[in-house]
Amino acid sequence: MPAQIIAQPNPPADPSLISDSILESAVQLKIKDFLPQDELKAVQEFRRAADYIAAAMIFLNDNVLLEQKTTHDNIKPRLLGHWGTCPGLVMVYAHLNRIIRKTGLDALYVVGPGHGAPAILACLWLEDSLGTFLPEYPRNYTGLKKLISRFSAPGGFPSHINAETPGAIHEGGELGYALSVAFGAAMDNPDLVVACVVGDGEAETGPTATAWHAYKYIDPAESGAVLPILHVNGFKISERTIFGTMDDKEITALFTGYGYQVRIIEDLLNLDNDIAASMEWALTEIKKIQQAARSGKPIVKPRWPMLVLRTPKGLSGPKELHGEFIEGSFHSHQVPLPAAKTSAEELGALQKWLSSYKPGELFSKEGEPNVAILSIIPEANTKKLGQRKESYANYIPLITPKWENLCYEKGSQESCMKAVGKFLRDVIKENPKSFRIFSPDELVSNKLDAVFDVTGRNMQWDIASRGQGGRIVEILSEHTCQGMLQGYTLTGRTGLFPSYEAFLGIIQTMMVQYSKFAKMGSETNWRQPVGSLNYIETSTWTRQEHNGFSHQNPSFIGAVLNLKPKFARVYLPPDANCFLSTVSHCLRAKNYVNLMVGSKQPTPVWLTPEEADAHCIAGATVWKFASVDDGVNPDVVLVGIGVEVTFEVIAAAVLLRKHAPELRVRVVNVTDLMILADTGLHPHALSHDAFKNLFTEDRPIHFNYHGYPIELKGLLFGRPNLDRISIEGYNEEGTTTSPFDMMISNDTDRFSVAIAAIRGGAKFNDRIAAFAHEKCSYLKHLRQKERDYIYANGKGGQFTKN
Amino acid sequence: MPAQIIAQPNPPADPSLISDSILESAVQLKIKDFLPQDELKAVQEFRRAADYIAAAMIFLNDNVLLEQKTTHDNIKPRLLGHWGTCPGLVMVYAHLNRIIRKTGLDALYVVGPGHGAPAILACLWLEDSLGTFLPEYPRNYTGLKKLISRFSAPGGFPSHINAETPGAIHEGGELGYALSVAFGAAMDNPDLVVACVVGDGEAETGPTATAWHAYKYIDPAESGAVLPILHVNGFKISERTIFGTMDDKEITALFTGYGYQVRIIEDLLNLDNDIAASMEWALTEIKKIQQAARSGKPIVKPRWPMLVLRTPKGLSGPKELHGEFIEGSFHSHQVPLPAAKTSAEELGALQKWLSSYKPGELFSKEGEPNVAILSIIPEANTKKLGQRKESYANYIPLITPKWENLCYEKGSQESCMKAVGKFLRDVIKENPKSFRIFSPDELVSNKLDAVFDVTGRNMQWDIASRGQGGRIVEILSEHTCQGMLQGYTLTGRTGLFPSYEAFLGIIQTMMVQYSKFAKMGSETNWRQPVGSLNYIETSTWTRQEHNGFSHQNPSFIGAVLNLKPKFARVYLPPDANCFLSTVSHCLRAKNYVNLMVGSKQPTPVWLTPEEADAHCIAGATVWKFASVDDGVNPDVVLVGIGVEVTFEVIAAAVLLRKHAPELRVRVVNVTDLMILADTGLHPHALSHDAFKNLFTEDRPIHFNYHGYPIELKGLLFGRPNLDRISIEGYNEEGTTTSPFDMMISNDTDRFSVAIAAIRGGAKFNDRIAAFAHEKCSYLKHLRQKERDYIYANGKGGQFTKN
Repeated sequence: MPAQIIAQPNPPADPSLISDSILESAVQLKIKDFLPQDELKAVQEFRRAADYIAAAMIFLNDNVLLEQKTTHDNIKPRLLGHWGTCPGLVMVYAHLNRIIRKTGLDALYVVGPGHGAPAILACLWLEDSLGTFLPEYPRNYTGLKKLISRFSAPGGFPSHINAETPGAIHEGGELGYALSVAFGAAMDNPDLVVACVVGDGEAETGPTATAWHAYKYIDPAESGAVLPILHVNGFKISERTIFGTMDDKEITALFTGYGYQVRIIEDLLNLDNDIAASMEWALTEIKKIQQAARSGKPIVKPRWPMLVLRTPKGLSGPKELHGEFIEGSFHSHQVPLPAAKTSAEELGALQKWLSSYKPGELFSKEGEPNVAILSIIPEANTKKLGQRKESYANYIPLITPKWENLCYEKGSQESCMKAVGKFLRDVIKENPKSFRIFSPDELVSNKLDAVFDVTGRNMQWDIASRGQGGRIVEILSEHTCQGMLQGYTLTGRTGLFPSYEAFLGIIQTMMVQYSKFAKMGSETNWRQPVGSLNYIETSTWTRQEHNGFSHQNPSFIGAVLNLKPKFARVYLPPDANCFLSTVSHCLRAKNYVNLMVGSKQPTPVWLTPEEADAHCIAGATVWKFASVDDGVNPDVVLVGIGVEVTFEVIAAAVLLRKHAPELRVRVVNVTDLMILADTGLHPHALSHDAFKNLFTEDRPIHFNYHGYPIELKGLLFGRPNLDRISIEGYNEEGTTTSPFDMMISNDTDRFSVAIAAIRGGAKFNDRIAAFAHEKCSYLKHLRQKERDYIYANGKGGQFTKN
Repeated sequence: MPAQIIAQPNPPADPSLISDSILESAVQLKIKDFLPQDELKAVQEFRRAADYIAAAMIFLNDNVLLEQKTTHDNIKPRLLGHWGTCPGLVMVYAHLNRIIRKTGLDALYVVGPGHGAPAILACLWLEDSLGTFLPEYPRNYTGLKKLISRFSAPGGFPSHINAETPGAIHEGGELGYALSVAFGAAMDNPDLVVACVVGDGEAETGPTATAWHAYKYIDPAESGAVLPILHVNGFKISERTIFGTMDDKEITALFTGYGYQVRIIEDLLNLDNDIAASMEWALTEIKKIQQAARSGKPIVKPRWPMLVLRTPKGLSGPKELHGEFIEGSFHSHQVPLPAAKTSAEELGALQKWLSSYKPGELFSKEGEPNVAILSIIPEANTKKLGQRKESYANYIPLITPKWENLCYEKGSQESCMKAVGKFLRDVIKENPKSFRIFSPDELVSNKLDAVFDVTGRNMQWDIASRGQGGRIVEILSEHTCQGMLQGYTLTGRTGLFPSYEAFLGIIQTMMVQYSKFAKMGSETNWRQPVGSLNYIETSTWTRQEHNGFSHQNPSFIGAVLNLKPKFARVYLPPDANCFLSTVSHCLRAKNYVNLMVGSKQPTPVWLTPEEADAHCIAGATVWKFASVDDGVNPDVVLVGIGVEVTFEVIAAAVLLRKHAPELRVRVVNVTDLMILADTGLHPHALSHDAFKNLFTEDRPIHFNYHGYPIELKGLLFGRPNLDRISIEGYNEEGTTTSPFDMMISNDTDRFSVAIAAIRGGAKFNDRIAAFAHEKCSYLKHLRQKERDYIYANGKGGQFTKN
């Protein structure tokens, strides 16, 4: 079939093809002889040197400067790595270097194609940033040999850029996030230009496709700039890319529509002049936009520059092998000469390829790069892309207001989120340039809108409000929020991501990948701590008056439970005062992923500020006021974890006190989920004794949990006497209905708790029957009445105290 | 600050603003008097009727045809619902109806703004599709009263479109997926046009931003078309939308770049003529493209039509309230008159608003719509948008080849994925028009490429291959793959989504939302079963030679564990023969989410086809060949779940047989994870007796598990004697390294298993010390040697048998 189709004549062109006039929107530049000869030579030799090292890293275990003719023995036994993207990454590095050296530009480099580690490591070695942080890789023959021979071998550098890579603020792995991370890094860094290469594979992802809009949220007066470089090399692992099949007209139209001035770099005969001219043009445009804004005359909808670098995949690599194109095809994606270890033909091709860079001209025998190469490397270490302070040592401590000042009176009814909103308002006042909130269009709905007393939304495209600026980004893209949060946090500032509970799972894998970066970073001896990733989940499954089944998904808790315990924190503060204490702690904590879960509706304030403080420090306490005899010597322990389910536990205790007064009930609230983990499995895990003190040695325990029961079961596994434990929690039931109905549907209601409390004792059989009858009556007869009652009263009835 | 800025004069316009010539790319049409008067009247009255019902649904509990003047008593006690998007959804419905009635068009309607349920329910009631499936909502006064008064009240329709909504194939909730779902539905339905409304909130999401490219994967010869309608109403919950701030030039440029012909509908004075003319134009363009392709002369890069409907939010609603704009602002997003129950002013505004539709003209007293309205409703039920067979009763059973024919010899070394690839090749041959594979650019890497023997990638933009067509979509967007899979599956066909293990979590929340739709669908009495969502995870964390830490994330298993048990299935087949049996079963199963996890590397074939069949049916069996005395009367039970960790269990059994021959070891493999759940918690859960037979009553059990240990702990919770159980699994450790090193790093290696096996017996203390010493030696001294050995041998050494 394919052959037949290819044999057909060209189909007629679509009469409505894009008109050529769109190309007028693409930026035209004079590029011929743009660079002085010495600079041209310098960038070309830098590129040759870095390309050489990158290629050698994939293949050689010895003879790393081609001192002798390459033999099969010089070839690594397993050939691993991704060549295809390397030359493009090197081009950008070389030209950034030239401009930094010449102009003192402050730049970071965010690399989307993170599997191009050899390219970046080669450049880092050339500028001696590798040797600075990792002394085992000095800029001499020893260091070069180690870099080349150990790459992708166990114990050497891995094949993706990660926290071990100097200058990196983005884990190379799951694709789609480089661009939003770059925008986060540029925020509140007015002098910084974050160059960001996006591969044309990554460009197919949704998160990247919307991140192009991110400039609409950048105020050029207060923030730096991102220079996006779309690297179109045409191929993914084994298929054409979408952007590779789009012509210049389609690409120009698309990015013009996103709001950019587009410059397509594709003159392969004058490639370095083209890149240099294009980069200088872009930087000039950036400066123009920034100067206008900073002089108080901001340009409306400024059209920021972007570059499209259209070069063949694996440029400078082997042209052909066995009659198939290598350069410019998907065959160069990973190892272009996969049989170099055994095939004489491929070994010959490798020798020819590597020799073509003329390493003898580029390096001395001692492995020192030549003068031309050194001439475009930034002189000051602090300017080098591998040693920017923003990338590893820039943490700005957050000033937090006294949360106790915002506390509510015990016994009142308050919304946790409204309390937090006021706290965040004060945080913004105290930290006007180092704290931001990234929210997917739900800040008001989540009742955090007190922040708008002191700040605004930073939406620059909104001419009506004239881009009034502010600390809040509200874009209906969780991915963009998360990427910005990562970039902002990893460059030393503090952010917060509040979200509907159901929709935080959208960025679950991003959060996991980030936490891998954090883990590796903490294992280096040179990366300084950074702020935590802070999440608030509200609009939870427990309240479905406005939404329904699709808005029920508490699975993000489980995602955090799966992280390395050292970095994972989950809090479910039971009231507004506890929430204030918790958020204050989290915003100051370093290196963690902090997840806070709570209600936006008014709910009882159970604890005074002092009690809340003690409760949050302990992570869980006996709630004497809800227990029989202050909880001493209980027959059963009832545990609430989460706002609404704790309310039901307390209501159950009231029921039991009335209907089974002989039962000694202890009520416990857990606010720090991690205390439950078996001793030793988490830094917060209770000791055996503390667990026993809280939950007794052998009394039945019933947990009423906000999340999926299976998570709590997993957490408790290993604690003694598990047979005495029962657990209810969110069970994938619900619809648009009343809050109490949600509890009933998921067996977290007071009747279910009361039944669980007395299920073990035969003497309570009559009471079990009574409670079951009450629940059953509710289900059969009262459900609609209760629904109607709640509904008619216009509020979440049963979540008022008593 | 904002006030000051607003007081400034307009900043100077950017000299490089988009040139006006781009507007030439936007499609211009003659719209004046496009519609004959009777048709114009009919669509306008249909719109008035549906808008009226939708508005009434949000407010009224009585007096539903305004028989009397509205009083506070007529108003619902809690006002819930989303008005803002409703009028736009109704416009599209009305005009689709007109065209269907006139031309017999086969159309589905996918609604992105799923919270606009009132609009859709109103239209469904008008066309009597509601009454057809849900007899309690007949097309008369009784039905209308029930529809209006019960909406958003507990027990009535929820506020989002879901599986209870006739005609719907997309859950309204988490945004971003309508467009890709529409494309999936259009595939292999050559005569179908899937109209898809995307709200401008949803359009900000990443998944939508890349889904616009999906036409590049649609072959107009074999598939139907999607008619995308971007509804720009300018506002989200409380903020401008990105698209709302983009002018016509920006929008035209953007979508021209995506490859579309753009028609912007914004003539509010001639709105119905504009929509009608634009829709007819679009359908003509679609037909042109399809006819060219079907006559063998496909248009190169056909520019499919798209519509941009730019209308004020909440059009036809109240204009102003308390001096603020309602219509055309975010204030109309939900309830435009929130105090209608208590405020005389708002009640008056409501009376005025509802009366403006003149319901008396539209409905008889018996609630029957008037003749004009009925005149544009499709006559044949099967043509009505609410009764399309594709949306509820179209399951095409999959013909599966005999998997046994593809099995391998016991004792050989085979790749599970290569085996599956051959099976899929045969499935494609047998089901040329009802089976597809959606893959994020990893099909070859995942070793499923045998499918390319009989089919190709359906990438139409690739001129080089001339859009050769085929059953495979490879786009580097997991979201697009998932959306297409959902649309394809829900319209009755069968799909498969193979993925790197680490990256399936990207679509975790989509999968959960889909499963909610499936659950609700199964609870209706009119939706027929559909195929399962089938996932294969490979390139797992156990093999990191090519990638590394960022490619390690087995969390999708946990996501499936959290689903309603009735719909959730997780399989970890231990060898190629078991994988064949499993995939064959899954592709035929209905309504489930099936997750299959396995290796792409060659691994031992442990079982004959007959044994594999029995093993997969049982879900878990004793592996006698690896046990002492066939596993009779064991001292300890060792359990492998997953390919590589099972290999280590078997290796541990060999070690133990040699060094602790007096220990009676039973080896068990679990291939169906759900058998472990406590009795009654999952349909596959083993009975107490079966569990006891497999795992003994009281012997120690050690699980060596592929996923996160916490998941297994949660699953096993409730089984008796948990104290005897120990579990190891993926523990968030690893890098680019050898397979055995990955096992060691995560304590799933043979030494760790052997130590776990004998940890309880004092008499084995010497052996514990010996194994610990071996592991320690490995870590201290041998690790590098082993790494070097594996590395030097160029293969995953220890996963060969013995």
